[in-house]
Amino acid sequence: MSYIKAPMDIEKRSFEIIEEELGEKINSFTEAEKPVVKRIIHTTADFEYADLLDIENDAINSGMEALKSGCKIYCDTNMIVNGLSRGILEKFSVKAYSLVSDEETIKEAKERGVTRSIVGMEKALKDKDTKIFLIGNAPTALYTLLENMKENMPKLIVGVPVGFVGASESKEELSKYDVPYIRIRGRKGGSTVAVSILHGILYQMYQREGM
Amino acid sequence: MSYIKAPMDIEKRSFEIIEEELGEKINSFTEAEKPVVKRIIHTTADFEYADLLDIENDAINSGMEALKSGCKIYCDTNMIVNGLSRGILEKFSVKAYSLVSDEETIKEAKERGVTRSIVGMEKALKDKDTKIFLIGNAPTALYTLLENMKENMPKLIVGVPVGFVGASESKEELSKYDVPYIRIRGRKGGSTVAVSILHGILYQMYQREGM
Repeated sequence: MSYIKAPMDIEKRSFEIIEEELGEKINSFTEAEKPVVKRIIHTTADFEYADLLDIENDAINSGMEALKSGCKIYCDTNMIVNGLSRGILEKFSVKAYSLVSDEETIKEAKERGVTRSIVGMEKALKDKDTKIFLIGNAPTALYTLLENMKENMPKLIVGVPVGFVGASESKEELSKYDVPYIRIRGRKGGSTVAVSILHGILYQMYQREGM
Repeated sequence: MSYIKAPMDIEKRSFEIIEEELGEKINSFTEAEKPVVKRIIHTTADFEYADLLDIENDAINSGMEALKSGCKIYCDTNMIVNGLSRGILEKFSVKAYSLVSDEETIKEAKERGVTRSIVGMEKALKDKDTKIFLIGNAPTALYTLLENMKENMPKLIVGVPVGFVGASESKEELSKYDVPYIRIRGRKGGSTVAVSILHGILYQMYQREGM
């Protein structure tokens, strides 16, 4: 079988195809936003994301500043934590974590009859070093964040929960807040989408700084 | 804010909506296939997957048998390993693993100028207990599997690599083999899709066995 085996060639050719097929649509995004759009499509092979993406309240700059200052990143799934490139996180001395699978979270969620996502988010909000929130799965995590963030306003919310119950509504709610956010309107989103958005920011910082 | 906070209610309502919107389309799948289709849509909020899904060569029964016998599951990303429910894997005494981030794999891939996915898959194929392969990311992993599986024929290949270079082609190649497989035609797929397919199989085994 004949196929490309070198990782850099695959990535390069992938982005060329994405650019070709996006065509003029890419020009509705700023230079700093373009890598984010392209990475989402690279991850999903779904061009609809270009139409569903909102980047508001200077989200990318605000996120970059937080990342430069070595903040913590709270993720609503372990899959997101795991999907983030450890190498690039270490370069910026930032840490990603999730609390949804902690024994304590599981126990408390059961007792209260609520999702683990709610309990995990409540706990995360107590850590004042946590400035970026990646929500790829649970609308309840996003709602809990919006309800309780006043004392510790995020520098960036990536609000891309996926699904049929509350996902779309929670992202509508997000858009009412004066907070830097990136969202996918409607039902689509997910852990891999959340990862691709943060990578779209981190990799361009890395390139710009010639690290 | 008013929203559903109980996890079981959210899941139940989600599947009701999916069934409503799928309509008659679900009837083109067998009883054992239906949970797989629905889980993929639950994970992606993308109904197109119902049209792109192929389940061939008695894939679900074959996968179930392997799972019952306590096989190993090789995954082409750590995200897949991490996304699989540890609880349900333990119930069936099956183990999921990936080798793409091992020091040895990284070193060898660099030396040979090939993807880590190729090297990881080559190593996985040496373990005769590995009967199920979940490929959600790298076409090169799927190609390497197809080229080298003769000595250790899989009981199930979940072939859902996503992307623009080789993804579609590698899944076409898969369909030429007389091996139990589940694939998503075209460019779409991904780690979360691979997880949802295995969960669609595992959760129905769990229910049937009244565990």
